[in-house]
Amino acid sequence: MNRVLHLSVQSVIAWSVLLLVSTSVVAQSNERDQEMIQRIFDQSLTDDKAYEWLRYLTQNIGGRLSGSVQAEQAVSYTYDQLRSMGLDRVEKQPVMVPKWVRGPKEYAYFETETGKTTSVPVCALGGSVATPGLGVKATVIEVKGLAGLEALSAEQVRGKIVFFNEPMDPKLIATFSAYGKAGSQRTSGPAAAARKGAVAVIVRSLNLALDDFPHTGVTQYGDLPKKQWIPAAAISTNAAELLSSVIQLNPNTQFYLKQSSENKGDVLSHNVIGEIKGSEFPDEIITVGGHLDSWDLGAGAHDDGAGCVQSLGVLALFKDLGYRPKRTIRVVMFMNEENGLRGGLEYAAQAVKKGEKHVMALESDAGGFTPRGFGFTASDRQWAQIDAWSTLFTPYMIDSFKRGGGGADIGPLAPHYPNMVLAGLSPDSQRYFVHHHAANDTFEHINKRELDLGTAAMASLIYLFDQHGVQP
Amino acid sequence: MNRVLHLSVQSVIAWSVLLLVSTSVVAQSNERDQEMIQRIFDQSLTDDKAYEWLRYLTQNIGGRLSGSVQAEQAVSYTYDQLRSMGLDRVEKQPVMVPKWVRGPKEYAYFETETGKTTSVPVCALGGSVATPGLGVKATVIEVKGLAGLEALSAEQVRGKIVFFNEPMDPKLIATFSAYGKAGSQRTSGPAAAARKGAVAVIVRSLNLALDDFPHTGVTQYGDLPKKQWIPAAAISTNAAELLSSVIQLNPNTQFYLKQSSENKGDVLSHNVIGEIKGSEFPDEIITVGGHLDSWDLGAGAHDDGAGCVQSLGVLALFKDLGYRPKRTIRVVMFMNEENGLRGGLEYAAQAVKKGEKHVMALESDAGGFTPRGFGFTASDRQWAQIDAWSTLFTPYMIDSFKRGGGGADIGPLAPHYPNMVLAGLSPDSQRYFVHHHAANDTFEHINKRELDLGTAAMASLIYLFDQHGVQP
Repeated sequence: MNRVLHLSVQSVIAWSVLLLVSTSVVAQSNERDQEMIQRIFDQSLTDDKAYEWLRYLTQNIGGRLSGSVQAEQAVSYTYDQLRSMGLDRVEKQPVMVPKWVRGPKEYAYFETETGKTTSVPVCALGGSVATPGLGVKATVIEVKGLAGLEALSAEQVRGKIVFFNEPMDPKLIATFSAYGKAGSQRTSGPAAAARKGAVAVIVRSLNLALDDFPHTGVTQYGDLPKKQWIPAAAISTNAAELLSSVIQLNPNTQFYLKQSSENKGDVLSHNVIGEIKGSEFPDEIITVGGHLDSWDLGAGAHDDGAGCVQSLGVLALFKDLGYRPKRTIRVVMFMNEENGLRGGLEYAAQAVKKGEKHVMALESDAGGFTPRGFGFTASDRQWAQIDAWSTLFTPYMIDSFKRGGGGADIGPLAPHYPNMVLAGLSPDSQRYFVHHHAANDTFEHINKRELDLGTAAMASLIYLFDQHGVQP
Repeated sequence: MNRVLHLSVQSVIAWSVLLLVSTSVVAQSNERDQEMIQRIFDQSLTDDKAYEWLRYLTQNIGGRLSGSVQAEQAVSYTYDQLRSMGLDRVEKQPVMVPKWVRGPKEYAYFETETGKTTSVPVCALGGSVATPGLGVKATVIEVKGLAGLEALSAEQVRGKIVFFNEPMDPKLIATFSAYGKAGSQRTSGPAAAARKGAVAVIVRSLNLALDDFPHTGVTQYGDLPKKQWIPAAAISTNAAELLSSVIQLNPNTQFYLKQSSENKGDVLSHNVIGEIKGSEFPDEIITVGGHLDSWDLGAGAHDDGAGCVQSLGVLALFKDLGYRPKRTIRVVMFMNEENGLRGGLEYAAQAVKKGEKHVMALESDAGGFTPRGFGFTASDRQWAQIDAWSTLFTPYMIDSFKRGGGGADIGPLAPHYPNMVLAGLSPDSQRYFVHHHAANDTFEHINKRELDLGTAAMASLIYLFDQHGVQP
């Protein structure tokens, strides 16, 4: 008994020493991380690289729809910027992308039985076909979302223009959830209406605010035979409210739409890639990126110029702070997220083809607003490691770490790398859908500090993964 | 031993039952609170009262400087709104306020030795005297903050125009800290420069962004004899950067300033007050408010139209949800926060005079941006109660509860009510100083959802204090 006690005391002492040593190692590591993260934030908040890159992308180049001259200018510009940063490798990765053009500005009005016409702001949905040259005019019928359409018979829909008018749910705090809920009427509504014989579709803009901007975005005809494709346009939220009340009073309201949009087939474009080779584990690749293409109506400032320049900013911060990463840190400006995802798909295909080892990827594609945290797709064990880091972000009020998340462009890596961590920056989302896919997604709606805080948060997260590795 | 064990088991059972009962009571109360808070947020996010009140205050009335016609219009407007809400008591509380007028638009330029002049955007600081009718022109000398001035001798300053050019520190995440640090050169700089013989002062605008808006704000001559008062103006951050580099190249740069501002003495104005009487503890008063006055350059949207309409919104939410408070909930639109605080002082003086019992006060005066939490001035015991509520705000991402906080207008209550809790809404602060006291503090920079989330957070906090009381 005594001997057991004796052993036990020895054992307690041994464990205590071990615990002290390991606690001290953890504390030192934690302190070093704190200091580095502080340096990253200080540098980001006193630097203007990301903001000035974004000014150029949005004001000198502008909207960058895949296949457009502006998209190619953005490829050249970001490639040149990466070349000037003294990286270990810079590359334009070829990728074929669909080219869709809007053509001349759309025109639409509604007409009541008295013959009075009222013009309304509309824009063709991405991928939509044109109306006949003289436009299409028909009785307009309002439905709330896909369920609203399903409740109607083909007879009720045939020959009509279907008006999808389900608003985004203002009660959802995370506005991306509201986007997800109401968004199906835009992506799948036109095809569904076509199957029931509709001649055109107009969709309430996916915007939580009431204003006069129509918001574009992709629509998909899926396996609908091409000759059954019908033109589809978004209408501003103010006009949607007006039209809805007019239809209630005049069920025979006519709607006229004219648009000249066209699918032009595939053309060559590029992902733009730059990297710093890892000093210890060069084969372990950490990707950070955003998408370089944008819709054409605005300047692609929040969606996703912000994510691009933040990603470029991560490498710039590492360079400026003299930080030499252990792992390979690669920035990717993905092409064609908006209407095809070809850049993300090609990046993943090439990674697999080359036998690359991808351990982590981070995307910023939710706007350049004040960052609140990150969302992660990770195993339980990985999540335990990541979650413990959140307190390092508390001084910057960016410590809302949640499970689930990533980004459209990095998503195609996931099936090939089951052990990798995917992450997405989570900025404050309240203003995002005011600007999303609309003419007011412009530089003046970006606040430099909010943008820089995002860059710093991303660099800090990448730094932690680089330093501490990613467990499978 | 056995008996002791027996007793002990009985005791454990007794305690367990007690614990279960009390846990269950707490859980029920918690669930009721959760439900009520959910109802408050749902109502706020689907309602447009606060936003429309703000539209009127900013677009139909505009900037509301104390003593101006607009300030009196705002008194009448908010009084009428309160009267229409079916409250138990609505009052205009008389208060004498200082009236300062800007006069015709200011004009300024700098002139290098070559004789070339460059005009720069300036505005008189609140309370500043005018320049002589033909303006003042003198050599301009740059200093960084009050410390920079202190380092100069009277001889170096005499006859000169002092240019205070300490920027707000971009590295501070809480921008109000940066405002506090750089702000002293505006409030105390002109008087300090006058004591050293300066003929005028220009101050870099307290703005974290580089732009062309001069930002006003109060300056105080303190006990400096009136005939020694010198004119003081703010210069835009872009112009401050330019002027600084010009001075470095041309140390004899001259600066010319002309302004016609004038202190007109005191005039009568009002705090606007409305309340719902408490059903159980009508003598316990919970105050919620913002300040109705604003600077004259913009429309007082973020500072502090937002805080006013959020406070009105708290009572409107309670009315709309049919919530009958136990304690008296009083909304106050304070007059003259910007250049005198007379409204806050009078409100506290009347409270003491009438022997009122104030238990809690909440102010919103940090902008209408996405709320992140609250700051509290409270005892340790109170703080324990309050801190436990923060998780109720987690679903809304408004759970950053911190010690320290309140508001300028509710501050004067504190010395008279040592047991009361003071609180301030803490919105995201990154954009605030882009608009603060400048011509771009306008309605279009308010996002309805961000405003409504603040209103809901405030109503939820008031609800919790009302339900559970405030411990001394």
